[in-house]
This record gives sequence, structure tokens and C-alpha cells, in this order.
Amino acid sequence: MKVKVNRKAHFNAAHRLHNPIWDEAKNLEVFGKCSNPHFHGHNYEIIVSVLGEVDPVTGYVLDMKWLKDIIAEKVEERYDHKNLNLEVEEFKNKNPTAENIVIEIWKILRKEIPLQMDLTITLYETPRNFVEFSG
Amino acid sequence: MKVKVNRKAHFNAAHRLHNPIWDEAKNLEVFGKCSNPHFHGHNYEIIVSVLGEVDPVTGYVLDMKWLKDIIAEKVEERYDHKNLNLEVEEFKNKNPTAENIVIEIWKILRKEIPLQMDLTITLYETPRNFVEFSG
Amino acid sequence: MKVKVNRKAHFNAAHRLHNPIWDEAKNLEVFGKCSNPHFHGHNYEIIVSVLGEVDPVTGYVLDMKWLKDIIAEKVEERYDHKNLNLEVEEFKNKNPTAENIVIEIWKILRKEIPLQMDLTITLYETPRNFVEFSG
Amino acid sequence: MKVKVNRKAHFNAAHRLHNPIWDEAKNLEVFGKCSNPHFHGHNYEIIVSVLGEVDPVTGYVLDMKWLKDIIAEKVEERYDHKNLNLEVEEFKNKNPTAENIVIEIWKILRKEIPLQMDLTITLYETPRNFVEFSG
Amino acid sequence: MKVKVNRKAHFNAAHRLHNPIWDEAKNLEVFGKCSNPHFHGHNYEIIVSVLGEVDPVTGYVLDMKWLKDIIAEKVEERYDHKNLNLEVEEFKNKNPTAENIVIEIWKILRKEIPLQMDLTITLYETPRNFVEFSG
Amino acid sequence: MKVKVNRKAHFNAAHRLHNPIWDEAKNLEVFGKCSNPHFHGHNYEIIVSVLGEVDPVTGYVLDMKWLKDIIAEKVEERYDHKNLNLEVEEFKNKNPTAENIVIEIWKILRKEIPLQMDLTITLYETPRNFVEFSG
Repeated sequence: MKVKVNRKAHFNAAHRLHNPIWDEAKNLEVFGKCSNPHFHGHNYEIIVSVLGEVDPVTGYVLDMKWLKDIIAEKVEERYDHKNLNLEVEEFKNKNPTAENIVIEIWKILRKEIPLQMDLTITLYETPRNFVEFSG
Repeated sequence: MKVKVNRKAHFNAAHRLHNPIWDEAKNLEVFGKCSNPHFHGHNYEIIVSVLGEVDPVTGYVLDMKWLKDIIAEKVEERYDHKNLNLEVEEFKNKNPTAENIVIEIWKILRKEIPLQMDLTITLYETPRNFVEFSG
Repeated sequence: MKVKVNRKAHFNAAHRLHNPIWDEAKNLEVFGKCSNPHFHGHNYEIIVSVLGEVDPVTGYVLDMKWLKDIIAEKVEERYDHKNLNLEVEEFKNKNPTAENIVIEIWKILRKEIPLQMDLTITLYETPRNFVEFSG
Repeated sequence: MKVKVNRKAHFNAAHRLHNPIWDEAKNLEVFGKCSNPHFHGHNYEIIVSVLGEVDPVTGYVLDMKWLKDIIAEKVEERYDHKNLNLEVEEFKNKNPTAENIVIEIWKILRKEIPLQMDLTITLYETPRNFVEFSG
Repeated sequence: MKVKVNRKAHFNAAHRLHNPIWDEAKNLEVFGKCSNPHFHGHNYEIIVSVLGEVDPVTGYVLDMKWLKDIIAEKVEERYDHKNLNLEVEEFKNKNPTAENIVIEIWKILRKEIPLQMDLTITLYETPRNFVEFSG
Repeated sequence: MKVKVNRKAHFNAAHRLHNPIWDEAKNLEVFGKCSNPHFHGHNYEIIVSVLGEVDPVTGYVLDMKWLKDIIAEKVEERYDHKNLNLEVEEFKNKNPTAENIVIEIWKILRKEIPLQMDLTITLYETPRNFVEFSG
């Protein structure tokens, strides 16, 4: 009896898209206004999805209060109200595209979620653009 | 040509999380304020998803009006404006967690949906917590 | 330069609609399935709206972090995961309709918001039914 | 490192459900008020989902600006503010049910998306009825 | 103690924007693709808002079940799955812009709502375009 | 016959809250993590609301296509993918709180909207925090 449980969370951050091997003209050509050197930002919304067996004693796959707290501690504290390029270790040498951010969040939470459960992260960069990663 | 068709519905209900093998102190420890013996409640939203072949004569996987009516008759009539713990047979001896509710709704609708079609139920307990079950 | 600032919050609660001067048959006639003596429940969403002058030093009407904390302390702590009829003082002798709940929340928050500012509360009982009160 | 990227778009169109092998009475029996010969209409919302490898140079699966423009050029230009039955080639002899529309949009975009990537289209006919097709 | 109560409803319809005093070229110039003679359509969402005194016996401004039924009977039955230009009396000689539709819905419901209560209608033509009328 | 017409738009920007008369410690005390000198950001959503007479010839208060284009030209071009503090003239010496941003957008659009019409701007900084200004 495997059920997928999902929890929404959010953080607000600044970023720019930029590859340091290219000059500004090439970055502008590839990333358009997202390459603005002065940064822009987003209200990122995330959905953390965990697929696992329902525990017959609690009726839970896992305690959603625990999941909420883990997301707050490991993801929100790290990314909320931050400049992803300047202040978040994993993006100092990696372009903070939605694709790369969702992979990093997955790596962070994969260490916290019991190994026998499957993990998917969905990241909304805007209400119209979103990405999903399942490992 | 398999298409997944989806229909949203909703019901409002009271419940509490509670395992009768434990005393109130242990229930409070495990389920927190969700174990309040006086109950709390939710606007549950459900999405019924059916994957099947498109009928070349109608262009339908199935008639969504029929699906809407089946959900109303089998799920909404049973759960809407009810106390799940006290009034719904399947939760008299089963903890009405979102996980257990989504499994019960799946069992109810699985009997109604043609067998060659796949069925997934998604249940939103709140806009921030939701669960999915596919059998 | 008056700006209206708005903050969303939410709580989950059980209730029933019931007037003790009437017998159950009359309550059922007037309130329908909302009068179920075993209760049902909702995810209530609230919007707290405050109209006031923008402080030229901060650029704030008021600190939204403070407003968020006041709503949590005075409204969410009082109503969240509660049975409104049985556990909330103001509804022991008052029918917890959306209209009466929004008036009570307004009275609670009116004491907290600076007097020169106008206060409106919007309460969503469901995504399809909501009420507003401005004093 | 496969990530699924998703882009939302929308178009407004008129249609009716109708099978020309049947007379109006039979069409009314099968399709109800959706068979109204004078047409009705919808705000269709679509989600285009592409699963592919993240390019290590750009950090993109594909350029979402390019995806947005392709959807506008190939789908919105073709369907927006149109009568699907009368003005869109593929529905002159095919019933424009949500199922058939989502398959046609998938066929149109499948030609544009790199072959090594998987494509899923989700089409909302209303906020309560939606369909998905993955080929 | 005046509270505003609000109820959401919806209907799906086809229409075109068109003034018969102008030729097609002028209609195209003024109304753009909305003047398509073959029609297009929308999922219209409406919010009916009624401001009135709370009845101390029921705790209601008015019975929302009654309001829901009146909207269904007077508005949804009349407009849902219709071609507004061809099938709805009031638009046979009036352009069915969002502005004109919201005024007509207001006129229809004004006759039903008790006179001492204020009525506002909000009409969403799309999630991005909406109009309000209060008489 | 005055109708209020509303149009939604959006822009993504970086900002920080900061008063230069204070040192960083005082800014941190007042603005919390919103004062981060490296900036953070938001998906701002705006609603432009115009109250005016319905033109009996067009059935419009004003042409929503024109309103959409004016918002794009005057607001989105100016604010989208920008650092509000560093790149937008009006915030070089003014703290870009939601309150101050909504006032500036109102001032920009007030010059464009016919004088006999009333203008209100609503600005969502996040889905949970929003502000309104009517002049």
C-alpha cells in the first residue's frame, strides 16, 4: 500500500543566470534579461513528494509535521531571502537555473528521507514555469 | 492512444487522528493537535484520474458527466458534512489520516471504473498537504 | 498616502450550525447538513486588511512580520484544530456561521491594530463561500 | 540527470461535441448540452512538459523562452479565439473533445521538441476537468 | 452589523464582440480577434456579493444554499453552454462584452435579492480579465 | 453605468529593504532578513483596476488590449528582471517596500488612464502579502 505524500513550501530569493566561461555579451545572448548582473528574483514554491508504505500503526507514510520542519530547516533556512549566486555554496560555481536548483534541493532532502522511500521535488520559479526531479 | 482524464470534486468533513491502542497522552505525542478529542475539520479536495483508451466514436475515455455523478453518489454523499471517525463505517476502526482516506476512496471508485482503465486518486487535506494513491 | 496592506493566514476547525432554541428537526430544516450534530469542518482561510498611512521612514503601513505574528497568536492559536462550538468561548452561545466567525475575528484584531487604521477581515469557509466584515 | 520542465500557456476557443454519423437527437443524448449546435466555449489552459537531460553548459533542459515562443507560434496562433469545429483543420472531421484536442496538441509539439526528450501535454478544459497525453 | 457574503459560480459560453452598425473590417479593427464571426468562448467565473445585516436568529445574512440555487436557476441555466449572441435574449441587440454581461447578471439577480441588501457582481472572462458592477 | 475593469500582469525583480539613514544593524533590526545587502526577490503580480462609464458603442470601459499593452510598456519594461534598488530611478532614494512600489505604479499609470476614470493598483509581493492603492 504505497501512497505518495506531498508538502508545499516556499522561499524568496534573488539570482541571475550566468556562465563565467562566457563574457557578458554571450551570457546576454543565451540567458536574455535573466543574465542581468544586478540580479532579479522569484517567489519559489516547492512541492516535496515522498512515496512510501503506509505505517499500519499511525496511518502515516511519514509525519507531515516532521517533513514540514525538515524542509524549513534544510531548504528554507538555506535559500530564503538569499542571493543564490553570492550566498549559497552550491551555486557559487553552478548556474542557478530552476533545473539546477531542483537537483540541489533533491540532494539535500534525499539525505533526510528514509532510503526505502522515493523522493520527487517540484520547483515553481513562477506560476508559469516549473520543474521536477526524481533522482 | 491512452489519455488520462481528471475530475475535481470536494467534500467538507470533521475528523481526529487517534489510535485506540494508545492512551490520550501517547496520541497527543504522535498526532499533536490533530488528536484533539473534540475533532477539527477540512475542506477536502479530490482529483479522480482515469487512464484509458480514447473511444473513436465519442472521442471520450469516459463520459465526464458520468464520472462527476459517480463521485457525487459514491464519495460526496458518503463523506460530505460528516464526522469521519463517528459516522463513516470504514474509519470506525481505522485512523482517518489523509493516507487512509485516499486508499478508501480509491477502493470505492475502483469498483465503478472499467477494469481495463487505471485509477489514481489525489486528496488535498489542505492546500499545502496532499496525497496520491494508484492501487 | 493611505495604502491597504493585506495578509493571508489559515486555520482548520470543526463546527456545526445550530440554534439551541430550536429542536433538531427545525435546525435540520434551516441549516441542512450543516446542522449535523457530529460536526463537519473546514480549512478556513483569512485575509486581514489594514488601511493606513505609509510611514515615510520605514515605507511600511505596518510591519507585516508583526501582523503575521499577531494573527498567529490571537486567531490561529485560538481557532486552529479546534471544535468551534465546544472549545471556543465566543461560540458557546453563538452560532459559528461564517458571518459570526468573521465578526469575532474582527473584534479580536481590532484591539491590536492602531486605532487610526481601518480593519477589514475576509474569511473563506470554502473556496466558493466567503464573507467580509469592516466593523 | 533528467529533469522535467513545464510551461503553462492558454487559449480561448468555441466548440461543440458532435459526431456527424448521428442525428441531433442522438448527439444530444450522448453529449448533452455540449452538443449545442450554436457552440459554447472555454478558456483552455495547457501545460507542456518536457523530460530531458540538463545541459551542463547552460543548466537548461531547454530554453523556456524558446518553448514559450514555440507554443505561441504553433498552438496559440492556431487555436486561440477560434471555433475549433469550423476553423481548425484537424477538427473538421474529428470531435473536439478534450481528449482529442490534447492528442492533436501533442502531435503538433512532438515535431518541435528534440526527439530524445519525452513530451507530455496537460489540457484544462475547465478548472475541474483536465486531460493528459504522453504519446 | 453588516457583513458581505460572497458565492462563486461559473458557466461556459461562446460569444463574439460585434457592433452591427459597423462592417466586419471596422469590427475587426475595434475588437480584434474577439470579433471572429465564427465565435470563440470562455469559462466565465462569477462572484455574487451581497451586503446585509446578520440575522441574529440564524447568524446568516442570507442562506447561501438559497443563493447558490438562485444563481443556478437564474444565471447558469440561462447562460451555461450557450452562444450568448445567438441564444440569449439580452445580447441579441447588445454586444456581449464582459462589461455588458456583468450588468445583465446584476439586473437579473437584483430582482431576487432583498431590496435592503447591496449587490455586487464580479465576472471573470479569463483569469487575467475581470469586471465588477454594483448598480 | 460605471463598471470596474481589472487586468492582471506580473514582473520578477530583486530588491532589499533599507533606509540609508540607518546603519546595517538598525536596518536588520527593522527589516529583518528583507534587509539582506545581497538582495532577495519576488514574482510580483499586479492588478490594474479602472472604474469608468461603459461606452454604449463598444460596450467597453476601455480596450483591455490597450490596457494590457500600456501595463507592459510602462510597468513591465521598467521593473521586470530588474534590481529595484539599483536600476529603477524612483527607488534609488526610496525604500522599495510593497507600499512604495504600489504607489509608484499608480503614479505611472495615472498619467495614462483617462482622468474621469478611477484607478486602483493591487500588488502581490507574495501570494500571502499584498497591498492596494487608490490615490
